[in-house]
Amino acid sequence: MPRYTPLIRSLPSSVPFVGPETQERVRGHAFAARLGANENVFGPSPRAIEAMRNAAAEAWMYGDPENHDLRRALAAHHGAGMENIVVGEGIDGLLGLLVRLVIGPGDAVVTSDGAYPTFNFHVAGFGGTLHKVPYRGDHEDPEALIAKARETGAKLIYLANPDNPMGSHHSAAALERMVEAVPEGALLILDEAYVELAPEDAVPTIAPDDPRVIRMRTFSKAHGMAGARIGYALGAAPLISAFDKVRNHFGVSRIAQAGALAALQDADWLAHIRASVASSREALSAIARDNGLTPLPSATNFVTMDCGGDGAFARRVLEGLVQRGIFVRMPFVAPHDRCIRVSTGTEADMAAFAAALPHALAGARQS
Amino acid sequence: MPRYTPLIRSLPSSVPFVGPETQERVRGHAFAARLGANENVFGPSPRAIEAMRNAAAEAWMYGDPENHDLRRALAAHHGAGMENIVVGEGIDGLLGLLVRLVIGPGDAVVTSDGAYPTFNFHVAGFGGTLHKVPYRGDHEDPEALIAKARETGAKLIYLANPDNPMGSHHSAAALERMVEAVPEGALLILDEAYVELAPEDAVPTIAPDDPRVIRMRTFSKAHGMAGARIGYALGAAPLISAFDKVRNHFGVSRIAQAGALAALQDADWLAHIRASVASSREALSAIARDNGLTPLPSATNFVTMDCGGDGAFARRVLEGLVQRGIFVRMPFVAPHDRCIRVSTGTEADMAAFAAALPHALAGARQS
Repeated sequence: MPRYTPLIRSLPSSVPFVGPETQERVRGHAFAARLGANENVFGPSPRAIEAMRNAAAEAWMYGDPENHDLRRALAAHHGAGMENIVVGEGIDGLLGLLVRLVIGPGDAVVTSDGAYPTFNFHVAGFGGTLHKVPYRGDHEDPEALIAKARETGAKLIYLANPDNPMGSHHSAAALERMVEAVPEGALLILDEAYVELAPEDAVPTIAPDDPRVIRMRTFSKAHGMAGARIGYALGAAPLISAFDKVRNHFGVSRIAQAGALAALQDADWLAHIRASVASSREALSAIARDNGLTPLPSATNFVTMDCGGDGAFARRVLEGLVQRGIFVRMPFVAPHDRCIRVSTGTEADMAAFAAALPHALAGARQS
Repeated sequence: MPRYTPLIRSLPSSVPFVGPETQERVRGHAFAARLGANENVFGPSPRAIEAMRNAAAEAWMYGDPENHDLRRALAAHHGAGMENIVVGEGIDGLLGLLVRLVIGPGDAVVTSDGAYPTFNFHVAGFGGTLHKVPYRGDHEDPEALIAKARETGAKLIYLANPDNPMGSHHSAAALERMVEAVPEGALLILDEAYVELAPEDAVPTIAPDDPRVIRMRTFSKAHGMAGARIGYALGAAPLISAFDKVRNHFGVSRIAQAGALAALQDADWLAHIRASVASSREALSAIARDNGLTPLPSATNFVTMDCGGDGAFARRVLEGLVQRGIFVRMPFVAPHDRCIRVSTGTEADMAAFAAALPHALAGARQS
């Protein structure tokens, strides 16, 4: 065996998420509705699809390692400089790089108990010590996160706005107050994976060069390009340039770069997506209510539904749905694990969910 | 500023390679021939292009994090088990993960002086100590690498076969002897990025479960999919499963997975590529000889040409080519930097190179 590092030997072999394809292989057939990973079933912009199709024949060329054209467009979009933007292989990849830049064995990191597991995976992977604070109800708690960061001397603070898995959000004003409160020596990671789907008042005004915060954005959600693997971080130029010390310079697909540039320029499609997602959120909420569940307000492309029982009950509901061909997921920790989390989808997806849910609930109540 | 780790603060800001697009932006117009990055200008299999085009519309779905279908096909292709294969974002990405698994500050790593800079970038990035041995002529030197590994207690030994940037290769028998000599506690990384373009006798027989070696393969070169970002490693199951502790599980593009699977199944296209590359190697070698340069034998999709002077002279030749719209690169260290490195290309590429080379040489001789 290779002589792994002590850190690697200490890490568990578990992975943050099991993909739906794995479940399909176990079940022996495909899901009828794929509503578990908050993918955007309405798809990429037709212009993005066309750009990716055209780029396929040019895939013999490496992508531009500077991601120049996309970064220029993103800079214009955000009123930032190109030096404020680094493009990477989705937020997952960028989070890993950021943690690597800052966190070594024993360094303190603050997040919410039940927030994004892949961030925790990266922190553990570089030996950091995670300090978790509870949500306040169904919201992450900025004041508690800041207080815990002060208490522990944390180097990183993670907050997603809107939140996953609860779908809640904080106002721009609340986030701007949080940025003002970031302790000296700490960096706030503001994960805005879902922000294009949120109300406008969920988007704080933060100067691109503000050294207290780095914002993470993705083309995986509102732009419907999860499978293309492309996202970006917005932050102060010295921090952004530090990514060059560790990133895989040729790591972003040329096809994804072309698609993302086209997606960014198709504001009409984004408006269509926002409307489709909002409509499906309403439909999902109505289905939940029709079945005696409580849909939580959502600023995202999913609806988290309180099943009215404990974690074991919600788990049985989820399993009943999966058995009926509906891929959904649920929050990992109590008290949020009283819920299931259902992504927005097409009318056919909604119909399949509506047909399966009563049976899943009945099964869960019987066992 | 964030509190970077001490290791990160110690790293230089330099990057291993500048992309051709950066040079094009500086020059103000595009290269006439793109022959510097050993891309496969003959392109992906038409079946791979079609698979990627079809996958573009499905890019709203994350790729299968287990890369199941591709790994199954690769396992059959190599007579290995699926548990012997990990798919990643090209060899660059896989090398970074492997270094992370094994190398911590001060750990010894052995490579050849002038071999792949991106591997060195990863070793430095995790604090490893690089020990370099010289090439023996234009070949990497397996005996010297093994001796240096014994001397330094190295955890990793890097060898590319065929070699980049010299294009040379070792026989299967020589490599099999090298595997037998790997010291206890060391792991040989056999980078076979170009192996599908090499003579058959360059491919050693190594049991997939041999714990002494891990083989790196890519779809970037012979399969013409550099811009799609997909490669794989073949090795013992416990080592392969260790990648799960650190890899970006959803990091491989769904489009790339589809393309790679189709490419793997198109043996006819691979044969066409091998013939096209061989033909272009001959043409490049003839152009070199016509201009008084010495083309080195090549087992790859590039021809390294001895310009007959020192590094400064070859650098002037390269700059003369770049000024005339021909993107080429050259080895970084002496004595190999007496050469320029020219990738195989289309007849139009060859013609452009043939037209520019005499002027570049004349300019280099005058200054």
